[in-house]
Amino acid sequence: MLSHIRHFLLGSPLPSEQLGENRIDKVRALASLSPDALASIAYANQEIYLGLLIAGAAGLSHAFNLALVITGLLAIVALSYRQTIAAYPSGGGSYTVARENLGDLPGLTAGAALLIAYLLNAAVSLTAGVAALASAFPALWEYRIGLSLGLLLIITLINLRGAREAGTVMVVPVYLFLAVYLGLIAWGIVVALRDGPGTFPPALSPSVAIAPVTLVLLLRTFASGATALTGVEAISNAVPVFKPPETRNAQRTMAVMALLMGVLFLGTVGLTQYFAVVAGREETILSALSRRLFDSGLLYYLIQAATLLVLVVAANTSFAGFPRLVSLMARDGFMPRQLRLLGDRLVFSNGIFLLALLSAALIILFQGDTHALIPLFAVGAFLTFTLSQIGMVVHWWRERGPRWKSKALMNGLGALATGIALLVISIGRFTAGAWIVLLLIPLLVWLFRSINNHYREVGRQLRLVEGTQHFVATRHPRIVMPVAGVHRGVIEALNYARSIADDVTAVYVELEPGSGETMRTRWEQQGMESFAKLVTVPSPYRSLIGPFLDCVDRLDAESADGWPVTVLIPEFVPARWWHFLLHNQTALPLKWALLYRRHRHGKSRAVIDVPFYLER
Amino acid sequence: MLSHIRHFLLGSPLPSEQLGENRIDKVRALASLSPDALASIAYANQEIYLGLLIAGAAGLSHAFNLALVITGLLAIVALSYRQTIAAYPSGGGSYTVARENLGDLPGLTAGAALLIAYLLNAAVSLTAGVAALASAFPALWEYRIGLSLGLLLIITLINLRGAREAGTVMVVPVYLFLAVYLGLIAWGIVVALRDGPGTFPPALSPSVAIAPVTLVLLLRTFASGATALTGVEAISNAVPVFKPPETRNAQRTMAVMALLMGVLFLGTVGLTQYFAVVAGREETILSALSRRLFDSGLLYYLIQAATLLVLVVAANTSFAGFPRLVSLMARDGFMPRQLRLLGDRLVFSNGIFLLALLSAALIILFQGDTHALIPLFAVGAFLTFTLSQIGMVVHWWRERGPRWKSKALMNGLGALATGIALLVISIGRFTAGAWIVLLLIPLLVWLFRSINNHYREVGRQLRLVEGTQHFVATRHPRIVMPVAGVHRGVIEALNYARSIADDVTAVYVELEPGSGETMRTRWEQQGMESFAKLVTVPSPYRSLIGPFLDCVDRLDAESADGWPVTVLIPEFVPARWWHFLLHNQTALPLKWALLYRRHRHGKSRAVIDVPFYLER
Repeated sequence: MLSHIRHFLLGSPLPSEQLGENRIDKVRALASLSPDALASIAYANQEIYLGLLIAGAAGLSHAFNLALVITGLLAIVALSYRQTIAAYPSGGGSYTVARENLGDLPGLTAGAALLIAYLLNAAVSLTAGVAALASAFPALWEYRIGLSLGLLLIITLINLRGAREAGTVMVVPVYLFLAVYLGLIAWGIVVALRDGPGTFPPALSPSVAIAPVTLVLLLRTFASGATALTGVEAISNAVPVFKPPETRNAQRTMAVMALLMGVLFLGTVGLTQYFAVVAGREETILSALSRRLFDSGLLYYLIQAATLLVLVVAANTSFAGFPRLVSLMARDGFMPRQLRLLGDRLVFSNGIFLLALLSAALIILFQGDTHALIPLFAVGAFLTFTLSQIGMVVHWWRERGPRWKSKALMNGLGALATGIALLVISIGRFTAGAWIVLLLIPLLVWLFRSINNHYREVGRQLRLVEGTQHFVATRHPRIVMPVAGVHRGVIEALNYARSIADDVTAVYVELEPGSGETMRTRWEQQGMESFAKLVTVPSPYRSLIGPFLDCVDRLDAESADGWPVTVLIPEFVPARWWHFLLHNQTALPLKWALLYRRHRHGKSRAVIDVPFYLER
Repeated sequence: MLSHIRHFLLGSPLPSEQLGENRIDKVRALASLSPDALASIAYANQEIYLGLLIAGAAGLSHAFNLALVITGLLAIVALSYRQTIAAYPSGGGSYTVARENLGDLPGLTAGAALLIAYLLNAAVSLTAGVAALASAFPALWEYRIGLSLGLLLIITLINLRGAREAGTVMVVPVYLFLAVYLGLIAWGIVVALRDGPGTFPPALSPSVAIAPVTLVLLLRTFASGATALTGVEAISNAVPVFKPPETRNAQRTMAVMALLMGVLFLGTVGLTQYFAVVAGREETILSALSRRLFDSGLLYYLIQAATLLVLVVAANTSFAGFPRLVSLMARDGFMPRQLRLLGDRLVFSNGIFLLALLSAALIILFQGDTHALIPLFAVGAFLTFTLSQIGMVVHWWRERGPRWKSKALMNGLGALATGIALLVISIGRFTAGAWIVLLLIPLLVWLFRSINNHYREVGRQLRLVEGTQHFVATRHPRIVMPVAGVHRGVIEALNYARSIADDVTAVYVELEPGSGETMRTRWEQQGMESFAKLVTVPSPYRSLIGPFLDCVDRLDAESADGWPVTVLIPEFVPARWWHFLLHNQTALPLKWALLYRRHRHGKSRAVIDVPFYLER
């Protein structure tokens, strides 16, 4: 039943051999690796607008300058990652680069930061996508949490199915997004030349008492707006998916992507400022801009649809990256082992579940509000950038290949720029949520190390010691079995017991006082005494497990060879699942109690289950 | 941890020997057996008021006449049960009387009706008690559901603890209730003589268009008001708790109780009508009556407190009756067996849980509204009365002792009176909720019979056939064990396997293609091949259990003697519970799969668990 639903939703299992690499050309690579980066401009725009709005028209007139600074940072980071592509043709994620070059602690820090960034990318992209949708249909504004969770569910199911054709499907939203936004900018320039600049509404004019434009305000806004850069590292992680020459193709795609990001970001921020666009209370600034240019016509709705789609696709990239990173860290022994394995649809199902669960929690906790999530995202992303760039500097220094100094200088510049940005974000947005991530990362690192220690300790305990004799002389076990009556299930169990041992004890726990006598009479009548001696034990508190375990302990203590007795449990298996409700389920708790109750000398007590199958 | 909380809330286990009978005198018997019956007047009063209010002042002027009819019915039922006390000195519940005299089907019907009546007594008493409380403090009116559930939780915990001293404690609320209500009636008569009759507000006068006083309206009101009788049978169920001479003492207590019920019921209904009392929207009619007599003074609050307390105590009686009946029916094989047993506090814990759960569901479903629950209660209670009385008629006819005809006539009169009432209730309140119970009872009876059939079928399958040879010649089992590597856990398991069998096969499932070769090399290096041969099986879908079970099936098929191979599972037991999260939990699903996957010939496959205890 459950497996049918599963089959319908997720499809049938796929064999391992289908796990081949599909190399892709630059056009499709751009579509599948850039949505995360391109979509960033949606929320970065919004953050710059919200950050400066506090200071009214005076504040908003700094938008383009801030966008220029952020674009400069983008150029530096893109050039830095260009070098990472060259150095790690097999894909250089921050975790790998930092761990290989800087050691475990920075590596785990980068891993933690990257996991957080993936998680927040999913949450932020979904809520921002829903905000784009709700800007077009204000009636949806109050259902943002539900809509975000709905989209999350759809993405999760698609990813659990394993979206092998996703690359092709994703070409549509990404190129649609590029087309409509490049069109918007082009048309915006035409309108700008035709109409001239706009003016801010009087409520925002400097004469009205509003917060002043301070350096702190600008830095804070920069900190949030810098999320425009998130996703820029995606191509450097995925060099092997490119057609040969991989490095060169990846670098070119990276350059095109950075260029497009710059144009879109500067274009939209610039036009917004030029037209003095102001958004309503339930609208994003990008929506307000396109409404200014296209009113509420078909083109406006197309732009909102493209924004929603590209953000959903951007959220989807986390569903590839997060589980892959989790699996990598599990392989290295820093995460629970079950996260390492591919599920039956050739995807890391456990990692996908984990990401979906955490994203849903974030969306609910932060009430589906993009703006509230951004500070957390920025810290995670920039910490990743910085550690990765520092790792690259060390990489070049270690290799000392041709022109290593200029390469190290480039990555050093990247590390410096992103490091400063990280500092600004951590301090400027500390109380706005950055503290959560700054607290979480050391906790995660500690957790990763604890897990690693545990696995090492287990490995040590399980290791075979050279030169010791592993195998001990064969001894026949003594068997004790609980019995509740004289019936065919008991006979079956007794037959099995006698096939492996000569010393068999049946234990009857007197749940009702006096019932032991009746039992003994039946036992002897059926001639069972010659196969197993019967012991009856009283149970003053009417419980079965306690007195039985005490009896087992007594038999252990009587043992001459010091080995624990084997417990054999006769168990009914009813024919239908609901029949279970009609039987005392004592076998299961008894097995658990035996498993988790260590023998005095830490020796292993074997527990044998002999089922008896009921027919109807 | 859990056991600490449990210990704190419920106390430590009690030994069986504490299960003695405490005989009680008439004063305490009245206190412990009558609250259910006495408290009924609270909701019966309310039902008569609500039923007649629809027809305004004209309707309400029939209240006393209806109360007289119901009191007449009470007299007949009390006299009938007086005879049950004499005939069943060991306690004659409806289920016992109907099943002994009328057969299984009527017995099970009575059992189902009685269970429903117990359940509804708990729900109705609690919601009526909360209504009394909320009449005094109207701010609480909107929290009625929560308050009812809170009281239910307290009663449940007290009963799970096992309230052995309850008899003594209950004397206080019951006698307080009797004192304040008898006082209220006495003072009411004084005031009546002093002030003369009241007049209904003009809104209720016959000139205003209100529903007419029809026979249907009167019958419907009678149907709901007849719930005043519920609980009257309690004494006849509990004859053995009286001091000798039990029958005589029980009969006298019964007479006193019936008299008190009559006085309280007629007195309160009569005074309400005489003073033309009308209740506010968020108030019970009993509260309105006492407000009329005592304003909102201390005495008023004392009366409301006494009403709340006696209703809570009345709800509590269900917590004794319901689990006892359930246990009785489980003993007879009509309910799941686990409901039969006494818990570790000498109470039927499972039955108490069941009642608490169902009552909570009722309170939530019916929004804590007493009036909505009453039709269900009335059907259950009167079906019980009728079947029990018919059973008694048959009882006298079968015995044909001295004066059997007059006894049969008395019970026959009871059966007839309650039967007519049942008919009125079933038809008059059918759409108001009676249909639920009329539908539920056949369903329950069908369920009881299905359960009984299942147990009989199981008994048949387990029975030893006389004259057959139970024990087969001893054969040594062949063993197959899954292995995931070469480590100390595997050695431990292998040692055990070799101690009971010579033919041991280790199965390695290749979760990752090619890993089988590495495994084989290690296996041979450690010289394991001489103890167990290694088989590696591929797993194209990366699952462990499927390929392993297929391998087990192949080994079964190769078997010369037709017996299934034994599966031995080496299992880690981590040192701390949270370490479980760090290990693949394959042992548990594997054990389940083996248990619920029948062998081709229905033969029992033994499964052996050999734990390996990790130390840290």
